[in-house]
Amino acid sequence: MVVELVSVGTELLLGNIVNTNTQYLAEQCALLGLSMYHQVVVGDNQERLAEVVRTALGRSDVVILTGGLGPTEDDLTKEVCAEVMGMPLKEDAHTRKRMEAYFKNGIFKVIPDNNWKQALVPEGAIVLDNDNGTAPGLILEKDGKTAILLPGPPSELYPLFKGQVFPYLKKKQPEILRSQMVKICGVGESQVEAELLDLIDKQTNPTIAPYAKTGEVHLRVTARAKTEEEAKHLVKPVVKEIKRRFGDSVYSVREEETLEMAVVKLLQKYELTVTTAESCTGGLLAGRLVNVPGASEVFREGFITYANKAKRKYLDVSKSTLKKYGAVSPETAREMAIGGAFAADSDVCVAVTGIAGPEGGTEEKPVGLVYIATYIKDKATVKKFQFKGNREKVREMAVVRALDLLRRSILENCR
Amino acid sequence: MVVELVSVGTELLLGNIVNTNTQYLAEQCALLGLSMYHQVVVGDNQERLAEVVRTALGRSDVVILTGGLGPTEDDLTKEVCAEVMGMPLKEDAHTRKRMEAYFKNGIFKVIPDNNWKQALVPEGAIVLDNDNGTAPGLILEKDGKTAILLPGPPSELYPLFKGQVFPYLKKKQPEILRSQMVKICGVGESQVEAELLDLIDKQTNPTIAPYAKTGEVHLRVTARAKTEEEAKHLVKPVVKEIKRRFGDSVYSVREEETLEMAVVKLLQKYELTVTTAESCTGGLLAGRLVNVPGASEVFREGFITYANKAKRKYLDVSKSTLKKYGAVSPETAREMAIGGAFAADSDVCVAVTGIAGPEGGTEEKPVGLVYIATYIKDKATVKKFQFKGNREKVREMAVVRALDLLRRSILENCR
Repeated sequence: MVVELVSVGTELLLGNIVNTNTQYLAEQCALLGLSMYHQVVVGDNQERLAEVVRTALGRSDVVILTGGLGPTEDDLTKEVCAEVMGMPLKEDAHTRKRMEAYFKNGIFKVIPDNNWKQALVPEGAIVLDNDNGTAPGLILEKDGKTAILLPGPPSELYPLFKGQVFPYLKKKQPEILRSQMVKICGVGESQVEAELLDLIDKQTNPTIAPYAKTGEVHLRVTARAKTEEEAKHLVKPVVKEIKRRFGDSVYSVREEETLEMAVVKLLQKYELTVTTAESCTGGLLAGRLVNVPGASEVFREGFITYANKAKRKYLDVSKSTLKKYGAVSPETAREMAIGGAFAADSDVCVAVTGIAGPEGGTEEKPVGLVYIATYIKDKATVKKFQFKGNREKVREMAVVRALDLLRRSILENCR
Repeated sequence: MVVELVSVGTELLLGNIVNTNTQYLAEQCALLGLSMYHQVVVGDNQERLAEVVRTALGRSDVVILTGGLGPTEDDLTKEVCAEVMGMPLKEDAHTRKRMEAYFKNGIFKVIPDNNWKQALVPEGAIVLDNDNGTAPGLILEKDGKTAILLPGPPSELYPLFKGQVFPYLKKKQPEILRSQMVKICGVGESQVEAELLDLIDKQTNPTIAPYAKTGEVHLRVTARAKTEEEAKHLVKPVVKEIKRRFGDSVYSVREEETLEMAVVKLLQKYELTVTTAESCTGGLLAGRLVNVPGASEVFREGFITYANKAKRKYLDVSKSTLKKYGAVSPETAREMAIGGAFAADSDVCVAVTGIAGPEGGTEEKPVGLVYIATYIKDKATVKKFQFKGNREKVREMAVVRALDLLRRSILENCR
């Protein structure tokens, strides 16, 4: 079965945004064992969109379209697909009811007139309820071809795909495909690949596909087989071998588990509370921890101490340390971690201080220099990092490495 | 002049990497005032690649291809384009010499045999020297159509494009394109469009294109003209009219200015310091403020008070308020904002408390209920929001609305 992706949106043609949806969908389709030969981006133009949809349906079995389902006049994806596939639009009572409920609970009490066109559905289409927006997903089937229409915003697209489209496509795919993720943090992409070269070279079934994420490398091990049992049997030894080679750098083997989830799970396991003391990351580290449902069990409070005065006031960093070594130093990071744990009366503290740029760098302390410290069971650990990239990238990397150091410190001291 | 982008690479079809090259090239082409109607991704397959190139050259004037110029057998872009355009390959002495020099200075002293195919050039093509790799860029011109072949690695692509392709394309483009962004916060996408329907309906030059961001709507007003002056003249009255209609909801008319930048600029303008008191957003709000270079001037410290105890300890929220109204209430939000400003000795405080979910919701206080409060010049303002979506979405929306309420409170009290 061949799948093709069509992204609809002028903002992509103008380069206003990066097409992350396509990467997500391509990865998911690979996971399903579906072949993909083309990805296309086209604007909200009736004629060109129709041409693209016709071509895609001609050469592929399933076409997944994203974007252009909004309430505005620009949004044409549904109208065009309905016409190309000969499935005229009709109002869907169920969708209209959901829209009314959505607006009733929302901020905007009045439903703008143009929104109602979102309740129109091609006759015979499968309607996928969208819990995060007003545009439902749609599956149009005709003459052995399938068009799947999904909203463009990732917060709507991802849950719709994962919850409804993925199972739908899985049923269409007769072969059993089983894959397991091995998530690695703290090792560079090229190093991961170098250490797996022998495995990757001889791979046929299962295959090993590396995905580079910010500060992480995810390896997807995928096997094809006739039965679930057989596929599992093929995947297992490869995952075991990867875990053996990377040891504690592997933080999870579960698809849906993020780094912060793994950290929160460890904290829960060892019944530890944690606090954060952040300078250059300014709350992002705590923000990621709190993103884990149930984080309140282990995280009660955090400190954002951007100014030196705040480092002294809340974390009791000594005046002489700040003066002698500066705010960005292993000494300050260490005192932040210790002071944070005491101030919050928590078992563990992780502290970050660094120079995110673009200003503030010197020859001795360049932009990207970050110290991360943990304090746990009377033991402080400090690590120095030199990150590349702009302010945002430096901060992102600092957060990932702080979560990783926290994770490793817990393992080291509690296991 | 119409440009089309073709990315060649199996790793894109598998979703191993995000297609950032396309975003970069699309933005550059928009900047040059070139029209773009299609972007295509195709794998290293002779037949399919040839078909894609033929289609692209048929409907567009210039086709920019990236990837598939490497030394391996998989790399076919040059061979396919040469054949489709009828420009047979010949060894280029200049390129061969550069390759020899590149390898002499590099890590690999011996030139792998297959590398020599990179010295082959379609007859009559313009060769673009690549200082960061062995594959030169190529411009193929024939019958009024142009194919531009560039290497895929960003470290080779960007300098080649900026240094040689951009000037080449600029010469081909006589028309001037000028665009301005109008950024709106606190008004829904469909409401924005409803209020602009008359302008959008009659638009030809300039055009108005809406982009929905999380909690924001960006409008790009774009004019084409013979001169820079004339284009500016066309854009100006439209931007002015949009600003008149949306008033304070317009937070910026600058492409690169984010909501948090606009907030920091306002704080700087009125010489105010700010602090944050966050519960459900857990540091994300402060994290966005700190993302602005130079935020240290206005932001010194922030509070993450996830637990009730922390709200009392740092923000002096009264025990009776928490008991009587609960942590998620207008009363608590108000006390958090007042207490935060006093504790941090700052001029302004913005506080957030809510239920991000997935657990913790009740009928009276459902998931997505968030109270945001500001305190400035002895005046507290509290707003209630009911956000839709998963935990991440609720928190993201809360951050955007908190930044917006902060912005509006400053305008209201200081202007």
